[in-house]
Amino acid sequence: MGNMNRQWRLTKRPVGEDFDDCLVFGEEPIGTPGDDEILVKNLHISLDPANRVWMNEGDSYKAAIPLGGVMEAFCVSIVAESKSPDFIVGDVLYGFGHWEDYTVTDGAGWEPAPDIGAAPFSAHLGVFSVVGPTAYVGLLDVCDPQPGETVVVTTAAGAVGSLVGQIAKIKGCRVVGITGSDEKCTWMTQELGYDAAINYKTESVFKALLKHCPDGIDCHFEQVGDAKVLDAVLTQLNQYGRISLCGWISGYNATAPIAGPSGLANLVMKRGKMQGFIVLDFPERIAQSHTDMRQWIEDGKLKYRVDVVDDLSGAVEALHTLYAGTNKGKLIVKVQDDPLLG
Amino acid sequence: MGNMNRQWRLTKRPVGEDFDDCLVFGEEPIGTPGDDEILVKNLHISLDPANRVWMNEGDSYKAAIPLGGVMEAFCVSIVAESKSPDFIVGDVLYGFGHWEDYTVTDGAGWEPAPDIGAAPFSAHLGVFSVVGPTAYVGLLDVCDPQPGETVVVTTAAGAVGSLVGQIAKIKGCRVVGITGSDEKCTWMTQELGYDAAINYKTESVFKALLKHCPDGIDCHFEQVGDAKVLDAVLTQLNQYGRISLCGWISGYNATAPIAGPSGLANLVMKRGKMQGFIVLDFPERIAQSHTDMRQWIEDGKLKYRVDVVDDLSGAVEALHTLYAGTNKGKLIVKVQDDPLLG
Repeated sequence: MGNMNRQWRLTKRPVGEDFDDCLVFGEEPIGTPGDDEILVKNLHISLDPANRVWMNEGDSYKAAIPLGGVMEAFCVSIVAESKSPDFIVGDVLYGFGHWEDYTVTDGAGWEPAPDIGAAPFSAHLGVFSVVGPTAYVGLLDVCDPQPGETVVVTTAAGAVGSLVGQIAKIKGCRVVGITGSDEKCTWMTQELGYDAAINYKTESVFKALLKHCPDGIDCHFEQVGDAKVLDAVLTQLNQYGRISLCGWISGYNATAPIAGPSGLANLVMKRGKMQGFIVLDFPERIAQSHTDMRQWIEDGKLKYRVDVVDDLSGAVEALHTLYAGTNKGKLIVKVQDDPLLG
Repeated sequence: MGNMNRQWRLTKRPVGEDFDDCLVFGEEPIGTPGDDEILVKNLHISLDPANRVWMNEGDSYKAAIPLGGVMEAFCVSIVAESKSPDFIVGDVLYGFGHWEDYTVTDGAGWEPAPDIGAAPFSAHLGVFSVVGPTAYVGLLDVCDPQPGETVVVTTAAGAVGSLVGQIAKIKGCRVVGITGSDEKCTWMTQELGYDAAINYKTESVFKALLKHCPDGIDCHFEQVGDAKVLDAVLTQLNQYGRISLCGWISGYNATAPIAGPSGLANLVMKRGKMQGFIVLDFPERIAQSHTDMRQWIEDGKLKYRVDVVDDLSGAVEALHTLYAGTNKGKLIVKVQDDPLLG
């Protein structure tokens, strides 16, 4: 690599899932940090469904990626050079970074990575940085599930969903996961301890929920935004039911409005709550989530899978697997190693 | 009337708004209270959009009215006979009662009416009993509007909506009301002090909201469930926006599912909240709502209109006006006077 910086730049706005021609792979010289700046070396970058939303022209929960700018992602990186009093070379950081080898930054939005105990380095993006805290606050802070309550999870074998379901089990809930393959269903019930699993491609979600949620649904963790699934949940929602909206994958690549659930009236009748969130809304809860998750992993109560793509050049192709549902665990691109980490 | 008790009984389950043949007017002898029971004389009964929901077979937020049972409503009544140590003759009560002259009850669900100051008797159902506390907790407790924020209200000239908008003004908000006639628009802006009014029948709600909510929408009070209006609001919702779901009139007479809003994804992006409620969920707030409303009425800050139907026999016909939007204020049926009230 020498002193070149490989990177993916967003050169036009995609329509639908057709983003292959919009992201261009190239390289340019590595930047040099100025006063109070640092150069971070990106080790792993996280691929997440919401990345697609950031490519749109309008701002979402974060500013849109500017045309011509380097594609963005959540990263785990190491400080390679520092002209800032706040960072020293070798610090491992979490932050909103870019699809590239090296990034010059003033450090805003970058935080020291937590102690992850005996977990392997891939657990940074696999559990600790974004997906774990997202599952943790989205379930515990938005839904506040109580022991004995029934929790339903969509994309329940996914990076976030699989943690949501396991945390709900740890909290003493009945957990029913919805996913799109029998293999994932088996993994959820046999490995993750879910009480039941539903394959939405082969079963009626409404009937399956009726069967697996005999006491109704108290909490629901939504990531897809499929009207039929949401209607099935809304219809069976218990009084004071809570629906946590973590994502809306069905809409990220949509080129026309998608009909919404017709059952929202039941939110009135059952005095239910439906609330969107992102993990950044709960900064005061992140440290606790790290502590709990480290403990649960050590105790064997929290399992996770990572799907590591071995080269930055494969990032675009890998991103498609999230929408096809063919990735096998938290999708991570390994950009490079660092000798400081041994 | 002698000692006969006029009443409306629900004899079959309606389909859609076709409930005229399902409610039968008749009379039978007035009941006699047993030990620990009272006989209440119903003075005013409240007609509300949700009454239609109670006629369905399934339970809603309250038990369905049994077939053959007397139609139910919120009432203001006076104790005519008491064999209970908890009530004395002449007590004015609020409670879930029936469409009839007299009701025998053990007193469960009946509470003493509050002091309404110098307001006329019609203010009991016009403001104090249900619509006022509903507006109060639905806006203040569910949405928690802050001074300077923008609040949008649907059926904004209605019994609840007109109070929501005025309370939001009292709290220092910008208020935009959505309604279905120019006359109501004029009333809202010229009499109630709303900052803007939108006639959804003659204007694009999306464009009108864009014009009247230059800083976006922070709080929304929903009573209709129209997907187009909800989409217009969701699209313009600010970060951490709050949507209070008070009712879903569009669904009460529906005979087939109605498509929901397609813009729910924006609840995720903006970390918005959508929450259903009924006033019964906030028992600890009712007394404060009465105190505040009495003061606001005395100060001329809270105006209301009542639409009093003068005879119990006209109740069914009157109920239709709620769905047509042709009533002129809170719809009340005056059942009878009482000499004890002077």
